[in-house]
Amino acid sequence: MTDIEFKQKLENYQTRINECLSTILGKPLEKSESATEAAYYSLECGGKRIRPLLVLEFAYICGVPEEKVWDYLPIACTTELIHTYSLIHDDLPCMDNDDFRRGKLSCHKQYGEDIALLAGDALNTKAFEIISNEAINNVVSFETACRLINILSSAAGFKGMVGGQVIDLQSEGRQIDIDTLTLLQSGKTGAMITAACLMGCAIAGEYNSRIYADAAHYSALLGRTFQIVDDILDVTGDFESLGKPIGSDAQQGKSTFVSLLGLEGAKEQAENLTNQSLAMLENFKNNEFIKMLTQKLLNRSY
Amino acid sequence: MTDIEFKQKLENYQTRINECLSTILGKPLEKSESATEAAYYSLECGGKRIRPLLVLEFAYICGVPEEKVWDYLPIACTTELIHTYSLIHDDLPCMDNDDFRRGKLSCHKQYGEDIALLAGDALNTKAFEIISNEAINNVVSFETACRLINILSSAAGFKGMVGGQVIDLQSEGRQIDIDTLTLLQSGKTGAMITAACLMGCAIAGEYNSRIYADAAHYSALLGRTFQIVDDILDVTGDFESLGKPIGSDAQQGKSTFVSLLGLEGAKEQAENLTNQSLAMLENFKNNEFIKMLTQKLLNRSY
Repeated sequence: MTDIEFKQKLENYQTRINECLSTILGKPLEKSESATEAAYYSLECGGKRIRPLLVLEFAYICGVPEEKVWDYLPIACTTELIHTYSLIHDDLPCMDNDDFRRGKLSCHKQYGEDIALLAGDALNTKAFEIISNEAINNVVSFETACRLINILSSAAGFKGMVGGQVIDLQSEGRQIDIDTLTLLQSGKTGAMITAACLMGCAIAGEYNSRIYADAAHYSALLGRTFQIVDDILDVTGDFESLGKPIGSDAQQGKSTFVSLLGLEGAKEQAENLTNQSLAMLENFKNNEFIKMLTQKLLNRSY
Repeated sequence: MTDIEFKQKLENYQTRINECLSTILGKPLEKSESATEAAYYSLECGGKRIRPLLVLEFAYICGVPEEKVWDYLPIACTTELIHTYSLIHDDLPCMDNDDFRRGKLSCHKQYGEDIALLAGDALNTKAFEIISNEAINNVVSFETACRLINILSSAAGFKGMVGGQVIDLQSEGRQIDIDTLTLLQSGKTGAMITAACLMGCAIAGEYNSRIYADAAHYSALLGRTFQIVDDILDVTGDFESLGKPIGSDAQQGKSTFVSLLGLEGAKEQAENLTNQSLAMLENFKNNEFIKMLTQKLLNRSY
């Protein structure tokens, strides 16, 4: 796969994911439109769309034919709904109190805290409504839908994303060790990245199989790399590329992989993890794109 | 059914629902326990448990044998998880800013706003994890689980409970008419009461059938009665029975069924709706308990 072919496939994914997200909530009800508006506002703030992309790509590398993958766009986008709800709530004054997200005003600065809270709540719920709908409409079997809902909900909940956020809150203003930081991030960021890969497997009918375990292993490595690179970019990046202020972790006294390992140590670990990820991908067919993506995520600047 | 038999059945429901709720989230993870603790705190604040009770009772009156009903306790309790998350978020300073709930400190006063927010988020997600688990563990079919998840998620989301809360926010500090108040309450309170009844039907294998439509009709009448009685109790009740301050609606300048219809007008309407509800229940077998419950909900003092 050439660089140009990679870029085309990536952009095609992102374009179709963005198209799907722009109508996924349906039309707002006349009298209760502001929460839907606020949710669309945050959904359309951009981002790399890495989670829905991983769902679709894992469906593909687990055996779903290339042209059939698009049937699963709404299901793939449920990961972005959950991710977006978590960002909206994370930006609230009682959490990180961030006024900006991806270069735009955060949801509560634009719509008020109450509407932002409710928009996040309804996005969370909507993810599960969509997957159950796709089963009722025969896009996936009822069994597959239940597997998908189980993967997504357990990744997002008390023992996944929310669990990681709680450890994050408990770690505020004090030094934590590398094990705690790894546990924190495996919940906060890693759980949803793993969920995306496993949802792709489940769509392809792979469940609790050898290839499912390989996907879980790969996604754990990818999730860790992803977060380490985030921490590196918080030191070496710029506002324009990232759409958020630089150095905010250090300013808030947060322990990061950079503060614990040093910049060079963090870079080295990200490279090691990427090499392990690439090795794991050798177990999958049609792996050219996902391998290039894994490599590019290591070297991203945004 | 005698009054004593009614009371025994009601207490049995509530006891078993409370037992189920007290372990439903599993054990907290060591390092991320505070959100789980906060969620249990709010789940264990009591309440009438009317939603899970309706799930179980509708399963029963739609044909599930009495002793088999208890298999569906965890599924029934998911309605209480969603209800509890909505109460936790509703009490937050950016929403109703209530310091008390059922006579105890509200979740954010006890655990902080950040943990309360996350506990609510994870309770929302957990509901869907539980239902999908019950399918994976063969308690219900995958199809039934998808129907249940679809009913619950659409009732809780943008066009249901959250939609009603948005209209509520938009109505703050101004007079609204009876149609808007009815629309607001049919979302905010009604949607989840309807969901509970319909989930009971779905467990019994009734879906989009005549009896399903009857349950939908009954539940809409019950939901409206329930809210009117709530509004009446906000004027005529006392702190001890209700566990919250009296007169808070009037104090906040909220339009209620009492402010719009007058106390006598509201009482009359609640009675009319109850009579219609009772007539609708004639279409169900084994309806002695649900009829007495419907009557008692009209005359409740808490």
